[in-house]
Amino acid sequence: MRTSIATVSLSGSLTEKLTAASRAGFDGVEIFENDLLASPLTPEEIRARCADLGLTVDLYQPMRDIEAVPEEEFARNLRRARHKFELMGRLGADTVLVCSSVSPLAVDDDALAAEQLARLAALAQDFGIRVAYEALAWGRHVSTYDHAWHIVETAGHPALGTCLDSFHILSRGSDPKGIADIPGEKIFFLQLADAPLLAMDVLQWSRHHRCFPGQGGFDVAGLLTQVLRTGYDGPLSLEVFNDVFRQAEAGPTAVDARRSLLVLQETVGVAAPPAPAVPTQVAFAELVTPDADPLAALLGALGFTRTARHRSKPVDLWQQGEARILVNTGTAVRRDGTQLAAIGLESPDPSAAARRAEALLAPVLPRRRAPEDAPLDAVAAPDGTELFFCATDRADLPNWRADFEDTEHPSAAAEVSRIDHLALTQPWHHFDEAALFHRSVLGLHAQESVDVADPYGLLRSRAVTTPDGGVRIALSVGAAPTDDTVHAQHIALATDDVVAAARRFTEAGGRLLPIPANYYDDLAARFEFAAGELETYRELGILYDRDAHGEFRHCYTRTVGRVFFELAQRDGGYRGYGAQNAPVRLAAQHALKRLTGG
Amino acid sequence: MRTSIATVSLSGSLTEKLTAASRAGFDGVEIFENDLLASPLTPEEIRARCADLGLTVDLYQPMRDIEAVPEEEFARNLRRARHKFELMGRLGADTVLVCSSVSPLAVDDDALAAEQLARLAALAQDFGIRVAYEALAWGRHVSTYDHAWHIVETAGHPALGTCLDSFHILSRGSDPKGIADIPGEKIFFLQLADAPLLAMDVLQWSRHHRCFPGQGGFDVAGLLTQVLRTGYDGPLSLEVFNDVFRQAEAGPTAVDARRSLLVLQETVGVAAPPAPAVPTQVAFAELVTPDADPLAALLGALGFTRTARHRSKPVDLWQQGEARILVNTGTAVRRDGTQLAAIGLESPDPSAAARRAEALLAPVLPRRRAPEDAPLDAVAAPDGTELFFCATDRADLPNWRADFEDTEHPSAAAEVSRIDHLALTQPWHHFDEAALFHRSVLGLHAQESVDVADPYGLLRSRAVTTPDGGVRIALSVGAAPTDDTVHAQHIALATDDVVAAARRFTEAGGRLLPIPANYYDDLAARFEFAAGELETYRELGILYDRDAHGEFRHCYTRTVGRVFFELAQRDGGYRGYGAQNAPVRLAAQHALKRLTGG
Repeated sequence: MRTSIATVSLSGSLTEKLTAASRAGFDGVEIFENDLLASPLTPEEIRARCADLGLTVDLYQPMRDIEAVPEEEFARNLRRARHKFELMGRLGADTVLVCSSVSPLAVDDDALAAEQLARLAALAQDFGIRVAYEALAWGRHVSTYDHAWHIVETAGHPALGTCLDSFHILSRGSDPKGIADIPGEKIFFLQLADAPLLAMDVLQWSRHHRCFPGQGGFDVAGLLTQVLRTGYDGPLSLEVFNDVFRQAEAGPTAVDARRSLLVLQETVGVAAPPAPAVPTQVAFAELVTPDADPLAALLGALGFTRTARHRSKPVDLWQQGEARILVNTGTAVRRDGTQLAAIGLESPDPSAAARRAEALLAPVLPRRRAPEDAPLDAVAAPDGTELFFCATDRADLPNWRADFEDTEHPSAAAEVSRIDHLALTQPWHHFDEAALFHRSVLGLHAQESVDVADPYGLLRSRAVTTPDGGVRIALSVGAAPTDDTVHAQHIALATDDVVAAARRFTEAGGRLLPIPANYYDDLAARFEFAAGELETYRELGILYDRDAHGEFRHCYTRTVGRVFFELAQRDGGYRGYGAQNAPVRLAAQHALKRLTGG
Repeated sequence: MRTSIATVSLSGSLTEKLTAASRAGFDGVEIFENDLLASPLTPEEIRARCADLGLTVDLYQPMRDIEAVPEEEFARNLRRARHKFELMGRLGADTVLVCSSVSPLAVDDDALAAEQLARLAALAQDFGIRVAYEALAWGRHVSTYDHAWHIVETAGHPALGTCLDSFHILSRGSDPKGIADIPGEKIFFLQLADAPLLAMDVLQWSRHHRCFPGQGGFDVAGLLTQVLRTGYDGPLSLEVFNDVFRQAEAGPTAVDARRSLLVLQETVGVAAPPAPAVPTQVAFAELVTPDADPLAALLGALGFTRTARHRSKPVDLWQQGEARILVNTGTAVRRDGTQLAAIGLESPDPSAAARRAEALLAPVLPRRRAPEDAPLDAVAAPDGTELFFCATDRADLPNWRADFEDTEHPSAAAEVSRIDHLALTQPWHHFDEAALFHRSVLGLHAQESVDVADPYGLLRSRAVTTPDGGVRIALSVGAAPTDDTVHAQHIALATDDVVAAARRFTEAGGRLLPIPANYYDDLAARFEFAAGELETYRELGILYDRDAHGEFRHCYTRTVGRVFFELAQRDGGYRGYGAQNAPVRLAAQHALKRLTGG
C-alpha cells in the first residue's frame, strides 16, 4: 500500500521534512498548514519539490471549525475555504481534511452539519477537491467516527467522505468494528498513530504523546484490519504529534516512521518482509578501547581467559563458559574511550536475519571487514551499536570464530556460564525507536517500561528479550537529552553462584562496587535470610531482589571507560533486572565517580 | 512557622540535598528512604550532618502497605517496622509516615485498619516515635483525608495521628474545609505540594508533575488556612516529585522551594515580608556587547538617538520616547556576545522593592558599581538577568539617569513610544521558578502558559505583567535542555503606527525579518483588510493578529548576537504577544540563520 506521513511528524523546515520523508521511502506527505505558511517556497515550488522527491501531496489540512455554525459564520468559512482550495490547486493537493468543530459557535445539529458540509463539498468539487471529514476525539458535538460517518452519509455528496484517525478512534475506546459498515470508497483518508496508554486529557495526550504504530499501546493493526475490509485503498498516513520527534533529526525519525508502517503492514498481512530469524543467544559482546590493559585485568579477575586472537586485527577473544567478550584495540577510539560497540547475536539463519533487517530499513554494515574474514551480516541499531548475525562453529555457515586463532584453553572451572543481559543507554531522541527496532527487526519481545530513580534524574528502562531469556537487552534512557553518554553501558554475566564468583573476583584483585551498609539494614527489615547469608552479601556488595517467580542476586564491577560488568544469579525463574536496586547502584556509581574524579 | 523539605524534592546525593536545604534556610528535612539507603553515611552520621547544618529530621517514610492486611502479613509488617523504628532512633527522627495501603492484600475494613495502626503506634511509642497516617489519593481502600482521619480517630492511640498532603487532597478535588474538624494536635504532619491542573492519572500526576506552592493550579493557601485553624504548629514541609527538579542543581531548587513557602506564609498571613513595590514601567533595557557598531546601526535605524554616555563606564544610553536602551561594551563579553543583560524597572520605592526581593531570597547585587554612581538596588533573576529597581529623574531618589552625561537630544519625531515587552528565554530547569519569582518578588501577574511550535521543538511561553501592561515580560523555554541559548531574547518596542515605524527603519537601511508570502495568503483567507493594507504588510513583513479585545501588528529586525527587536502596535486593548504568528517568525529566523550561517 502507499505510505504517507504528515509533515508535523518530523522536525525542521518543510524542505528538510520532505527530503527526510522521501529518503525514508514514503510515497506521499500530508502538508501541515503551519509548515506551508512558514515556508519561503511558493505552493508551486513545494509541488515541484515534492514531485522531484517522488512524493505526492496526499492531504492538506488548512481549516478548522467549519460546520454546524450560524449561516453568517459559515459564509465566512466558505470564503476562507475558497482561498484554501485555490491554494490547493497550486499545491497539487486534491484532498482536504476537515476536523469536527471545536468552536463554541457550533451547534449540536447533525442536519445542519451535513447540509453545510455538502455545500463545502460542492465548492470543493468545483476545484477538483474532495473533503474528508474527521471526528476529533474532543470535537464539540461530533467526537466519534460513526457520528462523523453518519453526517457524511446524510450529506450524501460525492465529494464528501470521511477520514479515519486511529488515535481519535482508539483514544476514546471506540470499537473499530463499526468501520466495516462504511463503504471503502467513502473513506477518503486514513491517518495512523499509536500512543502509550496514558490516563490523561485526550487533547494533551494527542498533542504531545502520539507515537508511531507499534510504539504505544493501541491495537492499530486491529483497526487497520477493519479499514482494509471496507476495500479502502488510499494511503496509510502517519500523523504523529510528539514532543520528542519535534526535536529529533528528521532523517532517522522518518526511517523509524516508515519501519513502523512496514511492520504494521506485515502484521495485517498486506506485506511480507523476510520472516524474523530470532536470535537464540548472545554470541559475543565487543568492546572497543584505546587501552586493553584495564579491561584485561578486569576480565582476568572475572575468570575469563584470553582464548584467541583475531588473525588480522588487534582483537582478542576472552571466554568463560559460553560468555565471549571481544576486546578491540584497533577501531578508532571513540569519544568515551572504552565502550560496548557491537553485539554478536547467535542466529538460526544469519543471512535471513540480515535480509529482514535490511527490509525493515536497518542500516546494513559491510559484510566483511577484511578479505580473509568470514562474511558477517551486520546492521546498526538506533544507538549505533553494531549487531552481527552470527553462527558460532556451526556447519555450512560462515564461522566468525574461525577468524580467530586459538591461543589458550578457557579455564574449566568457570563461575560464569554466559551473558545474562546487555544494558545499553539509548540516545534520548531514539528510545521509542529502539524498542520497536529490537522488536521488529530482531523479533524480540518488549517488556513494560519502568522508571528508575538516578540521583540526578529519572531513567526509563525497557527490556527486549527472547521468550526463553536466551537474549536479553535492557534499553534505558534519561529524562532529558542533556547528556546521552553520562550513563554507562554494562554486560551482565550469568552465574550459578554469585557469592563464589564475587569471591573469586575480589581474590583475584578485582574491586566490586561498594554498596552502603544502610542497604543491608533495609534488606534485613524486608526479608529473612539464612544465618550468615546477609553478612556475606554485605561483605561483598551483593544486591538482592525477589519477584513472584524467584530470586536475583547480583553485584557490579567498577567502571572502565563507559563499561562495567555485573555478576548475576537468577534462581527460580526471576524475570527482572534488579530495577528495585538500581537507585542504590546508580548512587554508588556517582559517589565513586566523585571520589575518583572519573 | 518551621519549614521543611523532603529530600526527594532535590537532586543529587543525600549530602548534596542536605547542604542545599540548609543553605536555602530550611529548618528541617524529610528523609526519603531511597536517599538513606543509597548514602554511604550511617544513620548516626546523617543525624550529625543534619545537626551541623541546623536541620532537624522531621519525618522518615520507610514503609508502605502496612494496614488492613491478614494477620500473618501484618506480623511481617511489624517485624519490618521494628527494624525501621530502631533505625529512626539512630537517625534522630521521631515521626514516621505511613501511607494508606495500595497492596492487593489490603481489605476494605476500617476497623481492622484502625486496630492494626493502633498496634503499630503502640510499637512506635516504645521507640518514642509517632505514626502519621496519610491517605494516598490512589490508596486501595483509603484515598481521602477524612477517611484516614476517621480511621485514626477510631484507633484512638496517642502515638497515632494523621498526615495531610495538599496534593493528595486537592488532586482528588476534596474540600479542605473538613480539615477544621480534625484536632490540631492529631495532625502530626503537613506535606505541601502544588501541581499544574492536568487531567491525568493521579499517580503519574503525583510522581512526575508536582511543583512548589504557587507554581501550579491548586489553592494550597486555602488548604493551609484550614490546617492552621486547627492549631497545627508542626512544620510546613514540601514533598515534591518533579522530573525537572530531579535533574536541576539542588542549590537553586532549594531556594526556589523555600521562596514558595515564604510566599505561601505571606498569603495566609503568618509571615509579612516587605510588601511588593510593583514596578510601573521599564526604565531601560541594558544590552552588553563586545562590538557596539551593529547595535548602534540597528538602534539608529529604529529611530533611537544616542542621548547620553555614562560618566565613568563605556555605556551609551539610546532613547526614543520613553524607550531607553543601554549599550554596554565594558562588561566582560558573555559566551554569545551581544545579549540582554539587565532590565531597569521603574519602581515606586526602589529600596522597598529590593528589601522584598532580598526577603524572598533573590540574590542581591552590589548597590553601586562605582563610587560616583547613584546607588542602584538590584537583584538577579533566575535566568541571571540583572533587575535594577530604579527611579528616573524623580526627586529625593537616587537617579540612575544622573550617572549619564547628555550628549544629544532625542528626536522629537519618535515612532517608538516605550518598551512594549521584553522576551527572555529561561534556562530549562528554572521555568517554573522564573514565573513564581517574577510574580512574588516583583508583584507581577502570571498569565497562562502557551505552547508555541518552533520547527525544532515545542516552546512554552508565559507572560508576567502588571495589570495595566506597564511592564510585560514574556518568559519562554524549550522542550528540553539541549541548548538553553539557542533561542534569542528580544525587546519589543511599542509604536502607534507600525507601518510608519517599519518604513522609517527600512528607509534608514534597516532590514526586517522576511516573512513568507504564504503567510499573507493565509491572512487574506482569514481576515478582510482595507484596500492596500495587506499589500503593505506583505511588502514590509508585518504580521497581524487579533483577539477578543483588539488587534496586533508587529514586525521583527534581524538578530544581533542573541538579541533582536520587535516593532509592536497594539490597538483596542489586544492582550497577547502574537503567539499565533510565532511559528512563522521562528521558522523565518531559522531560515535566515541557515542562509547567513549565523
